[in-house]
Amino acid sequence: MPLLVQKYGGTSLGDVERIQSVAEKVITARQQGHDVVVVVSAMGGETNRLIELAHSIAEQPDRRELDVLLATGEQVTIALLSMALQARDYAARSFTGSQVHILTDSVYNKARIREIDDRRVRAELAEGKVVVVAGFQGVDEQGSITTLGRGGSDTSAVALAAALTADECQIFTDVDGVYTTDPRIEPNARRLDRITFEEMLEMASLGSKVLQIRAVEFAGKYNVPLRVLSTFEDGPGTLITYEEPRLEQALISGIAFNKDEAQITVYRVPDKPGIAWKLLGPVSEANVEVDMIVQNNTGEDRTDFTFTVHRNDYQRALELVQETAAQLEAESVDGDASIVKISLVGVGMRSHAGIASTMFKALAEEGINIRMISTSEIKISVVVDERYLELGVRALHQAFELELPIEVTDAGEQPAA
Amino acid sequence: MPLLVQKYGGTSLGDVERIQSVAEKVITARQQGHDVVVVVSAMGGETNRLIELAHSIAEQPDRRELDVLLATGEQVTIALLSMALQARDYAARSFTGSQVHILTDSVYNKARIREIDDRRVRAELAEGKVVVVAGFQGVDEQGSITTLGRGGSDTSAVALAAALTADECQIFTDVDGVYTTDPRIEPNARRLDRITFEEMLEMASLGSKVLQIRAVEFAGKYNVPLRVLSTFEDGPGTLITYEEPRLEQALISGIAFNKDEAQITVYRVPDKPGIAWKLLGPVSEANVEVDMIVQNNTGEDRTDFTFTVHRNDYQRALELVQETAAQLEAESVDGDASIVKISLVGVGMRSHAGIASTMFKALAEEGINIRMISTSEIKISVVVDERYLELGVRALHQAFELELPIEVTDAGEQPAA
Repeated sequence: MPLLVQKYGGTSLGDVERIQSVAEKVITARQQGHDVVVVVSAMGGETNRLIELAHSIAEQPDRRELDVLLATGEQVTIALLSMALQARDYAARSFTGSQVHILTDSVYNKARIREIDDRRVRAELAEGKVVVVAGFQGVDEQGSITTLGRGGSDTSAVALAAALTADECQIFTDVDGVYTTDPRIEPNARRLDRITFEEMLEMASLGSKVLQIRAVEFAGKYNVPLRVLSTFEDGPGTLITYEEPRLEQALISGIAFNKDEAQITVYRVPDKPGIAWKLLGPVSEANVEVDMIVQNNTGEDRTDFTFTVHRNDYQRALELVQETAAQLEAESVDGDASIVKISLVGVGMRSHAGIASTMFKALAEEGINIRMISTSEIKISVVVDERYLELGVRALHQAFELELPIEVTDAGEQPAA
Repeated sequence: MPLLVQKYGGTSLGDVERIQSVAEKVITARQQGHDVVVVVSAMGGETNRLIELAHSIAEQPDRRELDVLLATGEQVTIALLSMALQARDYAARSFTGSQVHILTDSVYNKARIREIDDRRVRAELAEGKVVVVAGFQGVDEQGSITTLGRGGSDTSAVALAAALTADECQIFTDVDGVYTTDPRIEPNARRLDRITFEEMLEMASLGSKVLQIRAVEFAGKYNVPLRVLSTFEDGPGTLITYEEPRLEQALISGIAFNKDEAQITVYRVPDKPGIAWKLLGPVSEANVEVDMIVQNNTGEDRTDFTFTVHRNDYQRALELVQETAAQLEAESVDGDASIVKISLVGVGMRSHAGIASTMFKALAEEGINIRMISTSEIKISVVVDERYLELGVRALHQAFELELPIEVTDAGEQPAA
């Protein structure tokens, strides 16, 4: 019997009525002949409520105890969903992360999964039960409760699907799939039937909030077919898998963007080995994550050095760099916190030339000045002035004709449930 | 280092401020040189909230899943109290029932404790930590979460104290000890410094709500000194132990009463072997608990048969008995749902005659008619009309001079903390 792992997030489980709807969706999958493991988050808002409670007790709550507290959120949901299934005469059984032995390291609040003992789940499935597992949580070798960090339920679901070699891991959320770009910016944005793990990873790291990066990585590593679906509307969603040979392959899968960027440039710093390390070392030590890095040699043994950080870290990074730049005898330091990054993502780039020039042409025709460029095998990112965000995204969406459906020649585009 | 097990109930943990106060009380005990294990209930009102949530999902929630749900209540409290202790620089560590391995049977919603593995707790105490354990919950052999039923946290505390051979098990509650009778009825009621396990058991089974019967039984069985104290006022509370020889021994420890009684009488039923069984069999099968039973042979091979039940069960029991009585050719059946039971409790009865007659005289002098009498080794109970409850209790309190303090000759009347 084909096995589905379904994951429902907090919004899908916001109140009693929604929990009842989720029970109905699970039953539909059972009726269609699937074994079903359901992974659930805490009811919407519950995790925040618990965090506030912790902070009303202690300014810096003990990290171990915070996990003990937060884990109750999912424990409530597994019990309620199991009750809802039982009340509909479907055998169901709940498991906490500890009970199903999702073994993690001991890094409380952001633990990593090491191992899952799948025997307990398999035994319950063999008895015809729906298995309801608390997402987001695990247990370390000492038997202490751990949590995986925000969005960790996606990771729990994928890890369970991998351990159980499930036929599909379905992530139910409040959007009906992955889009070519944000439909709020480009109304012609189109839901993708498929996208590759690599593309999805780039989309996620570039700001698309549909899936957690770790979950996509995990799914890619263990080759778990992942499907993003809406809890609230029926539809096939978007399937994330490895690339399969197809007659018609889209060059570009989507356009991602990131609004929270800020740029810092050090002008005419003496071009000696180690300047990148000297400039960025103090920034990293202050726990500021650096995103894009570009270096332009400007001749005369001097170079311009530009990088981007999250807007929240802009002031701190700027101060640190100004200090180092003075020591290195750079000419000046400049910064801008009103920039955005727009990225084209697509595995088609590997086999097709000319994508970059199409991109630059489309932006130039709209009078958009490019301030930084960075490329990877399946991605081109540009930094532009904030005010050009919407214009830029729409121009690129049109230039690459992303609104047109791709002709797909292989079958199997319907979701397993 | 002397070891205390302290138990705090839901009222003591009603909100963040009260949890902070409990942390202070625990720290006081630590500062006085005790090792401390704290057993906590869910925050006041939380268990009811969770039960309502379950019933909004399913009319008859699955019992296993109900325990998964309810157990989150105490899990929240152990985390918060541990955080509060850590925030005050006292090392603390929380444990769920499952983590500290409170092994129970699998009777969900009212499981019984079978065994406690004390090694984990001892190891943490040896490291100087305060150990905070979730009351009310355990784990069965399959690893499923169980709960012990309402008030089960008292039992958890006593069981832990027994397993750890603690020096004292302190039950913190909203009253400052066990009283000679309810002070709302007799303003001269006096807090007892001591009471024996047997007396406390009788008091509890007769309606005194201070302690759960199972907890007292458990404490008696394993000889765990039990102390009832107020969370909100300082004071020695009441110590519950085995009887110790003392020069001055009170005859009577207290007066308990039960307002929820109803009486059913079958008149002139043929007096043959088995009539008690025939009359009460159907009542028991209907899960109605029978309290007092009295049979008076009235001559002519006929007998009057009277028993009491909880007032909620009165109508059902009456109907069942009317049916059986007709079959047995009894003369008539009568009932009264406005009666109460008043009981004198005291181990002194064992060695002193005349207590019953003092009791009957005191009631007679107030014109109170006794409808039923039942005695045990350390208890005399009478059933009287409901309207005589307060008058009867006060008359007996005076007759036995319970308002006078007992002269105690042994030391050690102060609580360990």
